Amino acid sequence: MDYDRIFKAAIDRLHDEGRYRVFIDILRTKGSFPNAHCFHGHNGPKPITVWCSNDYLGMGQHPAVVTAMEEALHSVGAGSGGTRNIGGNTHYHVDLEAELADLHAKQAALLFTSGYVSNEAALSTLGKLLPGCVIFSDELNHASMIAGIRSSGCEKRVFRHNDLEHLEQLLREEAPETPKLIAFESVYSMDGDVAPIGEICDLADKYGALTYLDEVHAVGMYGDHGGGISERDQVADRVTIIEGTLGKAFGVMGGYIAADRTIIDCIRSYAPGFIFTTSLSPVLVAGALASVRHLKQSNEERLAQQAGATSLKARFRDAGLPVMESVTHIVPLLVGCPVKAKRISDILLAEYGLYVQPINFPTVPRGTERLRFTPGPTHSEAMMAELTTALVEIWGRLELEFRKAA
Amino acid sequence: MDYDRIFKAAIDRLHDEGRYRVFIDILRTKGSFPNAHCFHGHNGPKPITVWCSNDYLGMGQHPAVVTAMEEALHSVGAGSGGTRNIGGNTHYHVDLEAELADLHAKQAALLFTSGYVSNEAALSTLGKLLPGCVIFSDELNHASMIAGIRSSGCEKRVFRHNDLEHLEQLLREEAPETPKLIAFESVYSMDGDVAPIGEICDLADKYGALTYLDEVHAVGMYGDHGGGISERDQVADRVTIIEGTLGKAFGVMGGYIAADRTIIDCIRSYAPGFIFTTSLSPVLVAGALASVRHLKQSNEERLAQQAGATSLKARFRDAGLPVMESVTHIVPLLVGCPVKAKRISDILLAEYGLYVQPINFPTVPRGTERLRFTPGPTHSEAMMAELTTALVEIWGRLELEFRKAA
Ligand SMILES: Cc1ncc(COP(=O)(O)O)c(C=O)c1O
Ligand SMILES: Cc1ncc(COP(=O)(O)O)c(C=O)c1O
Repeated sequence: MDYDRIFKAAIDRLHDEGRYRVFIDILRTKGSFPNAHCFHGHNGPKPITVWCSNDYLGMGQHPAVVTAMEEALHSVGAGSGGTRNIGGNTHYHVDLEAELADLHAKQAALLFTSGYVSNEAALSTLGKLLPGCVIFSDELNHASMIAGIRSSGCEKRVFRHNDLEHLEQLLREEAPETPKLIAFESVYSMDGDVAPIGEICDLADKYGALTYLDEVHAVGMYGDHGGGISERDQVADRVTIIEGTLGKAFGVMGGYIAADRTIIDCIRSYAPGFIFTTSLSPVLVAGALASVRHLKQSNEERLAQQAGATSLKARFRDAGLPVMESVTHIVPLLVGCPVKAKRISDILLAEYGLYVQPINFPTVPRGTERLRFTPGPTHSEAMMAELTTALVEIWGRLELEFRKAA
Repeated sequence: MDYDRIFKAAIDRLHDEGRYRVFIDILRTKGSFPNAHCFHGHNGPKPITVWCSNDYLGMGQHPAVVTAMEEALHSVGAGSGGTRNIGGNTHYHVDLEAELADLHAKQAALLFTSGYVSNEAALSTLGKLLPGCVIFSDELNHASMIAGIRSSGCEKRVFRHNDLEHLEQLLREEAPETPKLIAFESVYSMDGDVAPIGEICDLADKYGALTYLDEVHAVGMYGDHGGGISERDQVADRVTIIEGTLGKAFGVMGGYIAADRTIIDCIRSYAPGFIFTTSLSPVLVAGALASVRHLKQSNEERLAQQAGATSLKARFRDAGLPVMESVTHIVPLLVGCPVKAKRISDILLAEYGLYVQPINFPTVPRGTERLRFTPGPTHSEAMMAELTTALVEIWGRLELEFRKAA
């Protein structure tokens, strides 16, 4: 067997399509986000501005978070030393789960090592516990939900993105006694659009389905306490299971679900991805706890971020750049070609010290390759002006199409 | 649909079998491991000694690790803020991957958020990249390897634990041109026995198979540099892919694989569980880097741990306690019943302040329920004497069987 040839061919395919990924090597500068240093392709660190971080609110440098982590590190050490069941259940874990349950007004919550693992573990386990369950999945659902649904072994029906009629049509086709689960996201992170959560819950009620909502790109950022779009839209109580991450707006790392006590107990007791792994480091848990608590009572970061996103969208629009429609904090610019998207990104980094990663297949569908900007409370108006000017120059240089100004 | 009834029934099954899990809620005391405080069932924290941590060498409190984490926290903040491809590739990640590649004398290494995810992502992706691949899996392989093999979609052949003849028989049954992968562990963590790595590699050579070795319970602890059993046995160069964790002997959290450059590049480029998740917090990566570097040049912790394990096994044997055969640092006591295992553990914690978790199905096969002790360099001879005395008392009280002294 010439294994090497097979593996080399797999890599060559990526080069041929222009979507071989090169990781830009950076260090952010705590205390002055979005500033960072870039090591990639240089003989030493070079200062850059990061425009594509999912630490949306800059909580990764918040004094409350940093102090909590430092205290935990000095009090209990680096790692938990075990799985949740075997020595790795710290008091921080217990406290954070209570805090997250409260955030979403649910009876209980459960921590995982990442949002990816929470989706994979929760969906696969739910599917396995409900014999004959059919899972209805939005076509743009995240890879981690797709992985969980796949490993649940359940039948899957894919509904067109945010399309209530199509979802209802598929629900109607199943027998009333069939267990059903509707899996979807609140904020779709590559387009920045939002699901009609209430209407999906109406359908769930009508057809007797459970609902599973990924709020990964919304927790911390929407709702008066950071409970996500489901809090903002006052529908959290109607969603069976809410899933979130601690690695984006909360600025740390980890994932979780919140739901009623019995469901949490089931997933805690049956999900291999929860059971058979070292629990989150208490240092991370302590940081996440401080972050969740802070964003529960502070709207300042959320408001600043929304203002920044609105401003950047307006600047792009006014400059005739092909900004995609987004009703959230995410600002995507359509390019439509992996090679060009990478080229723009390379020029921005090399010549302007501005870092935004090109988003190519499989993260987004082919033909919709884009640059995705995430302005936050730490990006100033001057930074946005600088970015817009740079993009306009590059757009001209590469003879890309400008939009007619609105 | 009465979903609640289905979920409640799933929980009832666990109660009926006596294997409903209650998580003991603790905080370890940095600077004086294995001392900790237990919150569970008390009105406040109560001092305990932890006997079941997988922070085998106490690296979670090592000054080099703690200092490195503190520095990273203050320099770059709490989280990475992105996936490895989108803003989450820090210089720490690059450095640690180089260090881990070197540890295992491989060309490259790749970090994951946990050892679980590394197994799941690497095995499933390898299987998908090799059309028609058959995976040969030791019957005692860890849940994360089983998950990865399952999601690879490959045919699986399960060989009897460490049974070379059975493995060869299964290999012989496949056509020579069929791609093959043998997946196994070095130290099996519940029994403490060790795989014949060299002989398995002989078979792999003979039948043209790749080898995938989980060294999760051996990295940091075996070999002159902590490269695991494959280093100790001088066979690392014969293993195609070595997988490890940063959450056990290295005392932090995270997982990785090490292999040749092309294989690492393939998994980096194709594995959803690697691509679509926030990368490890740089704080953890910095700590792991310090830990790996320290254990590369220090044998002190390894020697102390081996001495402790030898001593505890001898004490148990001399006291007539049913210690299972183990050629490693793991000291399992056979109980054979989930209810009794839990009872012993409850008494140890409540009356003696000694914490060891009962190990029940599905972590071990039914009928082999046990207590699993992990003495480390921080457990004194006095602590071992105290533990042995307590166990003998409980064994008598519960009328459990003593072994004839050897
Ligand atoms: C919609 C969605 N769900 C889940 C995840 C996974 O979360 P985490 O990064 O915490 O693994 C991501 C991105 O990483 C995501 O975009
Ligand atoms: C053999 C084996 N492999 C992999 C893992 C998973 O590693 P991690 O805890 O880093 O997820 C474990 C235990 O947790 C294990 O025992």
